[in-house]
Amino acid sequence: MSYQESAPCVAVVGVTGAVGQEFLSVLSDRDFPYRSIKMLASKRSAGKQLSFQDKAYTVEELTEDSFDGVDIALFSAGGSISKKFGPIAVEKGSIVVDNSSAFRMVENVPLVIPEVNPEAMSGIKVGMGKGALIANPNCSTIICLMAATPLHRRAKVTRMVVSTYQAASGAGAAAMEELELQTREVLEGKPPTCKIFSQQYAFNLFSHNAPVLENGYNEEEMKMNDKDVRVTATCIRVPVMRAHAESVNLQFEKPLDEDTARDILKNAPGVVVIDDRASNHFPTPLEVSNKDDVAVGRIRRDVSQDGNHGLDIFVCGDQVRKGAALNAVQIAEMLL
Amino acid sequence: MSYQESAPCVAVVGVTGAVGQEFLSVLSDRDFPYRSIKMLASKRSAGKQLSFQDKAYTVEELTEDSFDGVDIALFSAGGSISKKFGPIAVEKGSIVVDNSSAFRMVENVPLVIPEVNPEAMSGIKVGMGKGALIANPNCSTIICLMAATPLHRRAKVTRMVVSTYQAASGAGAAAMEELELQTREVLEGKPPTCKIFSQQYAFNLFSHNAPVLENGYNEEEMKMNDKDVRVTATCIRVPVMRAHAESVNLQFEKPLDEDTARDILKNAPGVVVIDDRASNHFPTPLEVSNKDDVAVGRIRRDVSQDGNHGLDIFVCGDQVRKGAALNAVQIAEMLL
Repeated sequence: MSYQESAPCVAVVGVTGAVGQEFLSVLSDRDFPYRSIKMLASKRSAGKQLSFQDKAYTVEELTEDSFDGVDIALFSAGGSISKKFGPIAVEKGSIVVDNSSAFRMVENVPLVIPEVNPEAMSGIKVGMGKGALIANPNCSTIICLMAATPLHRRAKVTRMVVSTYQAASGAGAAAMEELELQTREVLEGKPPTCKIFSQQYAFNLFSHNAPVLENGYNEEEMKMNDKDVRVTATCIRVPVMRAHAESVNLQFEKPLDEDTARDILKNAPGVVVIDDRASNHFPTPLEVSNKDDVAVGRIRRDVSQDGNHGLDIFVCGDQVRKGAALNAVQIAEMLL
Repeated sequence: MSYQESAPCVAVVGVTGAVGQEFLSVLSDRDFPYRSIKMLASKRSAGKQLSFQDKAYTVEELTEDSFDGVDIALFSAGGSISKKFGPIAVEKGSIVVDNSSAFRMVENVPLVIPEVNPEAMSGIKVGMGKGALIANPNCSTIICLMAATPLHRRAKVTRMVVSTYQAASGAGAAAMEELELQTREVLEGKPPTCKIFSQQYAFNLFSHNAPVLENGYNEEEMKMNDKDVRVTATCIRVPVMRAHAESVNLQFEKPLDEDTARDILKNAPGVVVIDDRASNHFPTPLEVSNKDDVAVGRIRRDVSQDGNHGLDIFVCGDQVRKGAALNAVQIAEMLL
């Protein structure tokens, strides 16, 4: 990130959280131009000192007056904060890129992955004289679609069966700390501390903690649904720190052989193919942690489907980065 | 296990391994009748002292003479040991229940899950005057089929998409120790020791370490294939100690609604349903560890399929117990 007089005033809402901190890291890495940057968080964190690009900042309490003069507001402070302060920011003329689920299903709020559907936010720009809301999709959805969309463009995906292996980071920094604490406790033979999650997470896994809806799917799984593609998802939390993995089974309208699919993925922006069968080297959460690209491997013709109408793939992506902060900053870049 | 004059002479091959130890535990728990029991292992373990049912045993080296007078031999010492010594035991008149993959695809060797296909071993009995081979299916397959078979009997499964979450125990006691050691090392900021697996396992996951075949599936995945049902599987190793989990998507020939499916599973032998949506309580590896029953939950109509022709379920089972030792001992019980 670099200071520029003509550049936008940026606010980061939820700056002390896992994604908030990653916003700063990604803004800096990508040399995002800015005139000023506001560090916003809850009252509890207000007054904390942050260093950003060799300059000291004081975290300010998020209030209704926080958005005066703010061009771009990056939100990651949970759905209820977004619901309350997002419209206030828009009212003040800010363009809000929101990482919560608050506006994902709201009409006229574009839900954007820059590599997938940049056209959804066409016309929304800094300097257009009014505020706007843009929603960042759910992390698992982003990571899945980064790989599925290039294939969908070629062969039209008609149905997807997704099983996720989701990291602690999706539940925030406190969940990552709880996983570490629990692991130490279990190794010492002590009962694990369960504050964030209701059950032991260390050396265990469980169905995603999102509320279960009447149809039996949880909210996390329903976020992966799409109006054009039939999707069934099973979302599972595994004891991994910060990158998600997903096993994705795809059915296509048109035939697509695995070599063509591999070539398409090799050329897809934001995607890296790791698919070395001989040395059993495929994507892992650890290998993609702190990386921008989503990794795809285990690309193979689905033997349970006829001809070349099915593929299985295994995808890993950094939940905090492409699954949240990076995607939001990429959206912000498109606003300039 | 209890001593009886008329009961069979039993041998446990690979008695010092994770499954070998579990054989003893299950034999004891189930009060399996025996006249004598031989503790067999490699030369390296020979001479070790074991206590079983308050009696001291010395581990003997497995040799060609080990099976004289043995009625039932429970093998879990790896495929190459089974391939060499299985036929020798049969030659001596033993009935071999083998937990390796050595004989799973061999013609005339029944591959048996007692709750699923007991008829496959009809006619094989202790006292029939000759030896025989019976194969224990792969652990992931057993756990999946315990839940899928009762549903298949009602509505005929036509296709399954399976993603596994496999525990360390599947690779033996040394792998469990490596996971624990690595976890301690990572928490101390040290590089993890990678002897059993080629990469970091602590706080990570990876595609199953079985060799990858030409079609892109690994051997573990192909073990889940069936001649009657189309199966595509993705097998992933997760940092969990001893129970496997599996996300299973089912397609049915006949309609099957989720309430009927739940009732069928509640009444299925060896299956317990844990499916409490309100309190988000579903099967976990930890909860089924050291348990005999396979747990099934997340039972829901697949929204990506028409009508009631699809279901998603989530299954957990103790890999060492029902996935290996218990299933083999159940087979042995049917031999009496």
